[in-house]
Amino acid sequence: MNEKKRAEDAEREPSADPIVERAWQALHSVLDPELERDVVSLGLVRQVEVRDGRAEVELALTSATCPARDSIAADARRALLSLEGVHEVEFRFRTLSEEERKRLVEKSEGTARPFNKVRHTLAVMSGKGGVGKSMVTGLLAVALRQSGARVGILDADITGPSIPRMFGMREEVSSCPFGLRPPQTKGGIKVMSMNLLLAEEGQAVIWRGPMISRAIEQFWGDVLWGALDYLLVDLPPGTSDAPLTVLQSLPVESVLLVTSPQELAGMVVRKAAGMAKQLHLPIIGLVENFAHFTCPHCGGKIDPFGPSHSALLSHQVAAPLLGRLPLDPTLAECCDQGMLENCPLDAFMPVAEAICQKLGEPLRRPPRPH
Amino acid sequence: MNEKKRAEDAEREPSADPIVERAWQALHSVLDPELERDVVSLGLVRQVEVRDGRAEVELALTSATCPARDSIAADARRALLSLEGVHEVEFRFRTLSEEERKRLVEKSEGTARPFNKVRHTLAVMSGKGGVGKSMVTGLLAVALRQSGARVGILDADITGPSIPRMFGMREEVSSCPFGLRPPQTKGGIKVMSMNLLLAEEGQAVIWRGPMISRAIEQFWGDVLWGALDYLLVDLPPGTSDAPLTVLQSLPVESVLLVTSPQELAGMVVRKAAGMAKQLHLPIIGLVENFAHFTCPHCGGKIDPFGPSHSALLSHQVAAPLLGRLPLDPTLAECCDQGMLENCPLDAFMPVAEAICQKLGEPLRRPPRPH
Repeated sequence: MNEKKRAEDAEREPSADPIVERAWQALHSVLDPELERDVVSLGLVRQVEVRDGRAEVELALTSATCPARDSIAADARRALLSLEGVHEVEFRFRTLSEEERKRLVEKSEGTARPFNKVRHTLAVMSGKGGVGKSMVTGLLAVALRQSGARVGILDADITGPSIPRMFGMREEVSSCPFGLRPPQTKGGIKVMSMNLLLAEEGQAVIWRGPMISRAIEQFWGDVLWGALDYLLVDLPPGTSDAPLTVLQSLPVESVLLVTSPQELAGMVVRKAAGMAKQLHLPIIGLVENFAHFTCPHCGGKIDPFGPSHSALLSHQVAAPLLGRLPLDPTLAECCDQGMLENCPLDAFMPVAEAICQKLGEPLRRPPRPH
Repeated sequence: MNEKKRAEDAEREPSADPIVERAWQALHSVLDPELERDVVSLGLVRQVEVRDGRAEVELALTSATCPARDSIAADARRALLSLEGVHEVEFRFRTLSEEERKRLVEKSEGTARPFNKVRHTLAVMSGKGGVGKSMVTGLLAVALRQSGARVGILDADITGPSIPRMFGMREEVSSCPFGLRPPQTKGGIKVMSMNLLLAEEGQAVIWRGPMISRAIEQFWGDVLWGALDYLLVDLPPGTSDAPLTVLQSLPVESVLLVTSPQELAGMVVRKAAGMAKQLHLPIIGLVENFAHFTCPHCGGKIDPFGPSHSALLSHQVAAPLLGRLPLDPTLAECCDQGMLENCPLDAFMPVAEAICQKLGEPLRRPPRPH
């Protein structure tokens, strides 16, 4: 047992019974998949008994609906059965008592922050509205998730959030001892968005800047994201409070810019790029949306927003153009129906691959269904 | 002479010479077209002499580049020549002395507000970005201007302003004793926008809410809009500081909502509508943008953003759907080239007419060029 484990384990007197003590040690290898900490250190293992080869373990869960329950039990069973002298395992589940909850929260200083371990935090930004930031965020999340990564979306557009609608989410946000637990899409993408906290999605959130900033800070520090490979932050238009808070207060690694073909859009995107540069954040690249269109009647190619100015913009903001996405009515309908995870990803995959390459993470393509 | 004129005129001793006194009275009928106040009350007429039927008038202008100079002189000439005993008029022009300026500014309490007389102030709002608020604002301004109305655009999108680019404006903002003088488009639409105050249009304006609000308040109170038939306020996306300030601090008469066919956009527009309602502002109607598209190759009809949900939205926000505008690559190019005033207005005219009808003002169609 290493020093750290010894310290965290200090509350517990070592057991006089060697098999029970070995069982406790074995349970140290079982991780809470959300928190990426072992269940003994977290104080979730409340009692261990072993009699005649039969282990009985009392597990306290952070909430009655703890989504990690089955995975923790399976891992604990495996760990205990690997011990000589254990051939049967039984669990008793209960939720943490108020006292136990308090101790756990104190350990984490009352926020989810210590449990949020994100490998890559990417801000999806544009400055300009309506160029498809949320759609690019959503498609990227789907592509990453389908490749097996653990993905979250922090919807920083407090007054005009689009993400829950795109994924057809109606889930209520539940709480855990450290704050809020982000609901998951059908495909397992964790999402936190203002619209998941409103009684009706069309309800107006009429807040001035400081409230907006506070909400975004809470979406990071008071939400149990746990261990993620990617956290995508969907920014609202503009270069005011919301993007300032995201780029200054969240551990953003780099910025992905989204634009549309119009020079007018590019002019505003340049402002966003300027903001990222002033805050010393690298721009990973540029994605052009609504770039082209194929007539469903004759197959003719059309530039629906006029000729593209993204090559020039890429030069101006000194960031590579990672891809040009079509205007696709099917995609718009998918978003309206909350079916983004069922959309064909073909056109988007090269963009996702380019982004992953920039982050030094190869994107594994999911096996195609036969 | 009425009581008010007597009070404003108090600085001046009545002239002993009856013809000179009549000349002063005649000049009371001459209006500064920007301020809609007579030039005597404004203190712009500094001296009047009449000798042998020849009137000499000294006019002090608010600035050396006063755009109203020629119109004031023409009106004054006409007024004086109508007097018996005057058959020649000469003007001496000079700019106001510092002392005279100060007195004028004191009269107006140091802001342009007392001179800003706007018959209809309309906020163009969406909540959602990129649905074409600025384009609808611009097209409406052009249609109104071409019908002969005096029109201004207050670009309240401080961090992502589009209006100057659409009109190809590069004018510098000049100042007058009361504050800033809004530059005019080629067609004579007055515009105030953050991008007219920046050295480079792509420069980022990284301001938190209070600064944004202050700028918008200044765009109203410290800008000499003068007498206008219509002031259109182009709002940024969201329901935070900028729209709050516009709807609370500016004399907005009603709100025009802009949406796109997607239900997702409609959901966010509902938030904007909710905000207008909470602030007790009537919604004049709804304009759907990017509604349909005609293939330039085969003429086929396409719904580029999927089927329209605006009829439902119109019902939900209890405001009439005033029109559905096509997605038109030509229009996008016009905007990029700063040629919005040269765009064909055909598709937009029914919308402009519907808006004017709602405001109780018939829109005069300009004569078609032969």
